[in-house]
This record gives sequence, structure tokens and C-alpha cells, in this order.
Amino acid sequence: MSDNKTEMDFYPTRTSSKSSVLPRTDPVTYCDSCDELTKDQVEFFEKNGYIIFENLFSSDEVGKLFDELTLLSNDETKKDMPQFILEETQRDVRSIFEVHKISTLYNRLCRDKRILKIVQQLLGSKVYIHQSRVNLKPGFDGKEFYWHSDFETWHSEDGMPNMRAISCSISLTKNYEFNGPLMVIPGSHKDFVSCSGKTPDDHYKQSLKRQEIGTPPKEILEQMVEKSKIVSAKGSAGSVIFFDCNIMHGSNGNITPYPRSNAFFVYNSICNTLVEPFCGLKPRPNYIASHDFNPLESVDSFLHSK
Amino acid sequence: MSDNKTEMDFYPTRTSSKSSVLPRTDPVTYCDSCDELTKDQVEFFEKNGYIIFENLFSSDEVGKLFDELTLLSNDETKKDMPQFILEETQRDVRSIFEVHKISTLYNRLCRDKRILKIVQQLLGSKVYIHQSRVNLKPGFDGKEFYWHSDFETWHSEDGMPNMRAISCSISLTKNYEFNGPLMVIPGSHKDFVSCSGKTPDDHYKQSLKRQEIGTPPKEILEQMVEKSKIVSAKGSAGSVIFFDCNIMHGSNGNITPYPRSNAFFVYNSICNTLVEPFCGLKPRPNYIASHDFNPLESVDSFLHSK
Repeated sequence: MSDNKTEMDFYPTRTSSKSSVLPRTDPVTYCDSCDELTKDQVEFFEKNGYIIFENLFSSDEVGKLFDELTLLSNDETKKDMPQFILEETQRDVRSIFEVHKISTLYNRLCRDKRILKIVQQLLGSKVYIHQSRVNLKPGFDGKEFYWHSDFETWHSEDGMPNMRAISCSISLTKNYEFNGPLMVIPGSHKDFVSCSGKTPDDHYKQSLKRQEIGTPPKEILEQMVEKSKIVSAKGSAGSVIFFDCNIMHGSNGNITPYPRSNAFFVYNSICNTLVEPFCGLKPRPNYIASHDFNPLESVDSFLHSK
Repeated sequence: MSDNKTEMDFYPTRTSSKSSVLPRTDPVTYCDSCDELTKDQVEFFEKNGYIIFENLFSSDEVGKLFDELTLLSNDETKKDMPQFILEETQRDVRSIFEVHKISTLYNRLCRDKRILKIVQQLLGSKVYIHQSRVNLKPGFDGKEFYWHSDFETWHSEDGMPNMRAISCSISLTKNYEFNGPLMVIPGSHKDFVSCSGKTPDDHYKQSLKRQEIGTPPKEILEQMVEKSKIVSAKGSAGSVIFFDCNIMHGSNGNITPYPRSNAFFVYNSICNTLVEPFCGLKPRPNYIASHDFNPLESVDSFLHSK
């Protein structure tokens, strides 16, 4: 149990105990109606914790997003903003956080009804952006991301009380089997892995490069993969994966010349806004874990005004 | 041109010049007859530089190979032999070189006619083992191997004069798209990439962990992939890939729980035995680059005596 006095901690983690698997006490989906998604699609998400849509955005639309990304990542005046994560050895941009506040186009993108309506249906409420970013994962030396549940971090380090958030990743390049696509373990979102180890101060400065605290031990991952399997999100540019905040996921590195860029939005229900971090430390900066809980209003298309 | 006085260096590399692409002056295949392989299969190898056989060995046979590997890698009395490459942080075995001299079973395996006859046909001569090893590439933190041509190293560091050698990798575990399978660039074996940079002394001590000298620059890799594509060697345990000594290949890391173990034999034609290394340094140790040029005699099956 955490020291947090105002909220019950249903998902204790970063403790001195051995890592263990706890049951999820929250629903996965909050919808009965068939609005944007069919009953089958909702059931698929409920069971597996993810759903993929091929070509949700056209190549023309992806082109516009790419152009904007190129402009942003070449803008020397912005590179010293904390939102801009640069390569260790040079000033190339690796990620841009809070991109929906930095770019009007990406602000509209996160409100595009083709994605927003799906998230609202699954979470059964209005939503706001907990985190946004674009990743430019380059070819040749793209680094791996080890297995983790995002919720484990958002709960302990950001104070997200419950599992009522969904991530949406929009591919801006083709995802091959070769260039380190996102891998998920279907069904793993129904278990919460309570991880061993105290969170260090300012953990995010390290964990955004390579996460070690808050990752499950090998035995638990082996059990999860044995029970299920691994699925990777392959597809053309413009395809979109929605995944539950607690699904176990990761990605291998990428030595191929193919970059793997994507826009990434985390939608949290307005019924699940942040409290004090359950790890007892100060919250991460707003550009990583937003305290702007204003619900998003949809636009018909990110390219055109209503 | 190298300083080597006795042999012409048709493939200068590790020079102070910029990396460049030179034409291959050697044939790829040396056979007219249809012996083990059909004409189509030989043509496929000639054009692409590799060929894959699913289930060349049965799961029972793979089981025997795995048992032997387990015995060897748990043998504390052997772990201090230079042939045993251990993990950096613990005494787990990562690779065992010269395994065909350490294990009778693996000695018979490299002479099993199901593989030896294919190599002899493609190279049009008797062959000997230039290098053998088993790799236990573990799950969770299997490291990537960056793009390289083996011949580039064998030529410069071992003194292999010409391109008349073939590697054979026998899968001892399933190769998924997820666990960092071998990736090749079909057709790349017809170009020789002369690499920039002087070879340091005892380069193998570093390059077996992570190769940097002797790897092509990004622009050349981009051109090669643009001209062709990437193919990965997926398949069940017991499948076998033969690939040309000069094909550009590499593999991504592996964060999955699935290990990726294989037995690896390099067959060199007895018409292509080693001379002084073209880089001008002393040759690598025998367990990495053998000077035992005795031709191999085949056995019907590695499990049973003739």
C-alpha cells in the first residue's frame, strides 16, 4: 500500500517485495453500444488489449504529417526545449513530447474523429491527452524498448489512479517485421505486474532512454508469453494501433535502413485524472504527464476545418 | 593493394580511402551437374547468395544436438578455454568456437552428408572447416549484430584469398520474426564493399562482441537495400540456411523470451586455403580461423555410424 493518503492504491508497485502478478480490478472497456466500433471489435479489444486499423489515414495525410515533423525536427530554435529529446551523440531529434501543444496540425490530429471517437467509445467518457509525442526512431541504430506496462509507470510516477486510458500509435512510416515494430502480448493487460525496486528521483531522465525499474522479471514474462504469444504491429504508413494502458509491450532494435516513425497519443478518461504519484515522489513534468484535464473536442479531419 | 607479397589482393579493404563498392571477381557457384541441388536451386543460390531448407534435421536430431550443447555449456572445466565466450556479466556461455573439435557429435554434424554434399556441390571441390561455433543467443537481451560481409573479415584478418566459402547455420531453436533472426540482403554477395579504417591489433577480441571496423557506411547499405530488399531466415528448429561468404547480413537484438540458438559452420574450398592476412597483422587464433586444411569426409548421418 502506498503512503498516498487521499486515494486507495489498488496497484501497489516499486515496492521492496518480490515482483508479483495482481489481478486487474478495473474494466477494460466501458461501452455497450456499437458506435464507431462493432461489437466484435470491442470484444477483440476487451480480450486482447489492442486493435489495429490498416490505412486509417491516407498516404496524402501521412505525407502532411511527415512534412510537419520534418519542419519541427529541423527547427534549431526549438531543439533546446525540454520536449525535444536529442540523440546522445548529435543534435538529431529522437522524440518530440507534447507535440499536440507545439504543432497545430498534431493538435488537430489527436482530435481527429477517426481516432477520438474510438477512444471515447472504448473508455465510455470524454478524454484528455495524458501524453503526446512523435518518435523518429531512425534506421541503423534504433534502440530496443524493453517489456513494460505503461500504466505501471503512469500509476507510480504520475498518479494515474486506475486503468482507464488508451494509447494510440499512428505509423508515419511502414512497419516491417525487420525495423523493430511494436510487439504486444495479447491478454497481458488483464494482469498487473507489481514490480520490485524503489523509484529513483527524476527517474524519467533515465527511463526514457532505457527503462530498468518498473520492468517485469524474466519468469513473469515467460509465463505471459507461454499463456499467450507475441503479436507485432506491422502495416503501411497510416495504420493505427490502439492499445490498453496496461498491456505488456516492447520493441526490438532496428539495424535496417528503414526508419520507424510514429505519432503517439495517450488518452485518459476525464473520470481518471491524476492524483499524487503513488511512488511518493514529485510528479513528472507536464510535457510528459499532463495536468491539463480539459476534454478534447473532435474535428472531422485534422487536415480540414470543420 | 596490400603489402602481402605472395598473393594478389583482389579485394583491398581496411584502407585509408573512403569505403567503396568493388565488383566480385570470383564465381559464386562452381557446379554444372545436378547432384544434391537441382538446377533451379543452384540458380537461386547464384542469384541471391543464400538458400534455406526447412526441417533438414528432425526434431529428434535437434534434441540430441541441444542436449550436447547443454552438457558442454554447463561444463565448468571447459569454460576457461578461449573457445568458450562467456556473457560479460556472468559465467553463462554465449558461444563455443571450434565446436567440431570439442564435440564428437558436432564433428560428425559438420560432415553429415545432408549438408556437406550441398556445400561440395556449390563450391565444386572438397572443403574444410574454416570456423565452427554454436551460438546460444539468449532471450531477453540478445544483442544485435550489425551488417557485415564475413568474407571482408576473413580476407583481411585471416588471409582467405578468394570468395569460395559458404556458411551453414543450423537452427537449434525456432527462428521467429520476433527473436532477431538472421537477415540477409539478397544479391549483395556480388558486390565487395571495401571498408575504410585500419584494423587494430587483436581486433577479434572486440569485433566478436560488436563489430565496427569492417562494416559498410549507411549510404552503401541504403543503396543495397534499395536495389534488393531484406530477407530473414525464419523457420522451425532443424531448418538450415546456406549463405555465400560475401553476402551482407546482420541481425536485430532479441528482447523476447525465445532464445535463438544455432550451430554455425564455415566451409572453405581446399583450393582457397589461407595465406598471410591481407591487413598485414598476425592471423587470428586457430579456433577462429583454422589452419587445419584437411578435407572433410562425409558421414551418412551425424547420429549413426556409417
